[in-house]
Amino acid sequence: MAFCHVDHELAPVRRVAIFGGTHGNELSGVLLVKHWLENSAEIQRVGMVVKPFLTNPRAVQKCARYIDCDLNRVFDTEHLSEQETEDMLYEVKRAQKINSIFGPKGSDDAFDLIFDLHNTTSNMGSTLILEDLNDDFTVQMFHYIKLALSPASCPVLLIDHSNLKYATTRSVAKHSVGVEVGPQSHGVVRADILDNMRRIIKHGLDFVELFNSGKEFPPCSIEVYKIQEKVDYPRNEAGEIVAFVHHHLQDQDWQALKPGDPVFLDLDGNVIVYDGDYTVYPTFVNEAAYYEKKQAFIKTVKVTLTAKCIRSSVLNQE
Amino acid sequence: MAFCHVDHELAPVRRVAIFGGTHGNELSGVLLVKHWLENSAEIQRVGMVVKPFLTNPRAVQKCARYIDCDLNRVFDTEHLSEQETEDMLYEVKRAQKINSIFGPKGSDDAFDLIFDLHNTTSNMGSTLILEDLNDDFTVQMFHYIKLALSPASCPVLLIDHSNLKYATTRSVAKHSVGVEVGPQSHGVVRADILDNMRRIIKHGLDFVELFNSGKEFPPCSIEVYKIQEKVDYPRNEAGEIVAFVHHHLQDQDWQALKPGDPVFLDLDGNVIVYDGDYTVYPTFVNEAAYYEKKQAFIKTVKVTLTAKCIRSSVLNQE
Repeated sequence: MAFCHVDHELAPVRRVAIFGGTHGNELSGVLLVKHWLENSAEIQRVGMVVKPFLTNPRAVQKCARYIDCDLNRVFDTEHLSEQETEDMLYEVKRAQKINSIFGPKGSDDAFDLIFDLHNTTSNMGSTLILEDLNDDFTVQMFHYIKLALSPASCPVLLIDHSNLKYATTRSVAKHSVGVEVGPQSHGVVRADILDNMRRIIKHGLDFVELFNSGKEFPPCSIEVYKIQEKVDYPRNEAGEIVAFVHHHLQDQDWQALKPGDPVFLDLDGNVIVYDGDYTVYPTFVNEAAYYEKKQAFIKTVKVTLTAKCIRSSVLNQE
Repeated sequence: MAFCHVDHELAPVRRVAIFGGTHGNELSGVLLVKHWLENSAEIQRVGMVVKPFLTNPRAVQKCARYIDCDLNRVFDTEHLSEQETEDMLYEVKRAQKINSIFGPKGSDDAFDLIFDLHNTTSNMGSTLILEDLNDDFTVQMFHYIKLALSPASCPVLLIDHSNLKYATTRSVAKHSVGVEVGPQSHGVVRADILDNMRRIIKHGLDFVELFNSGKEFPPCSIEVYKIQEKVDYPRNEAGEIVAFVHHHLQDQDWQALKPGDPVFLDLDGNVIVYDGDYTVYPTFVNEAAYYEKKQAFIKTVKVTLTAKCIRSSVLNQE
């Protein structure tokens, strides 16, 4: 039996947060976090503190994605260090507040792990979002969750990209997990989608508990979908959409899109095909919130990630 | 062969409008109406004028249901006769404008027929909404559309009810047709849903053309779902939802709900069952826009409507 080299020992993961309501109309996370704020027995584990937290309460109150701007895009140095003024955007204020509670981002004082709960109108199923391909701890956790949910599918989206990566709310922590479950209309709670999200959190917390208890996780590999490019809807000069997602692509998140396959359709029946020269795997297909971001879907490619053996550097003594 | 009694002759239907964007984030109608404003060949028919019209352009621009209040609830005498003031609600202003173009509601000058195009997040399929059970012309049209779409289903919701009927935008016309197609997330265009809506309009206009041409429509019967009661989500004292639609009811619009069947589920796993004493047929199940209206679904009962034989009182001479 192989043992982890001492170099692969990682700090234990003691302080964990679960964020809901980063987008106020993505209701599975809002309901789960509100529930856990009342009764947290379900999310407590030995050797760690797990804090449920509503990140954008005014947007939740209004059942809107955001009040002034997207909270999940403002955790960069510029916004986090912006001087407070009277007309500061609400979400920038919230970002600074969240950074002061769970960060500071990039510091030793930051929380060890944040799960951020999202919904999508796209047919993405139970998706995990990975920010850093070198984060062995999180890759090991995703491997664990995927196995636990099997044979149900649990795709991993890797957003590690020179200019498409965005400054997420969860990026405040040392390890960050995006949980993206769909399809669900914004402003709606579906029992099945809520249940799928809840399972992910259960298995994720179980993994952390095992890790803290000293369990060694041998090297593993997972298949991930690496973000490559975003694709906008065809628009006219006024910026209005003139073609929409073709029914052959609708709901086909994570399925192969080959050169020549239909992508868009206009009202006169004209079809626009995928003119790339290799197969890609679209996701976030026809997500409601991304019309304003000029994004009909994102192209991804399949990549295999390998994580080293990991174990906790300190056995759980609490 | 039986002929229509002269009493069943109805005025020809010359002036027809198709409304889109009454709710600015219900995009099938918005896209279709914008398309027909550019190119109306598809909706023109002999002997009639068909006018596509965007009813709530500011809400469309913002991709929101409405700006100040629900446009589809303010076509009552009180709002339509409200004195214009500076702080008048935007939708009340629009209602008066629409009433001046297509009405006045209840007058001889009003348009003969308005189709109003809506989407729902509920799994209602291609639904027609009937306001007046004595409107033989519209019942005959629905019978025609149902046959034309067969074997696909096309349920009819009858909202003729002493206190649940609401003052719709389309009620300005002598005959009004609500078209409600789902499931589709608000703020999203799905090719399949748009296509289903387009088929309804095609067959509806074909019917009017046939009617105006002098074709006689013999007596017919259709099954409709008559609105009976609305049901809210279970809420706590603060008004927050504490249980959501049970997965056995989710997506089951138009399916029998029997006494004792599960309806709601809370986060502790408690089930709330339907405690009525007869079978009902829920619809608008878990519609996003109805959370604020305190409505988880509406109960309907099945009723058979019969329309008399109809024919146009004037043969088409245009």
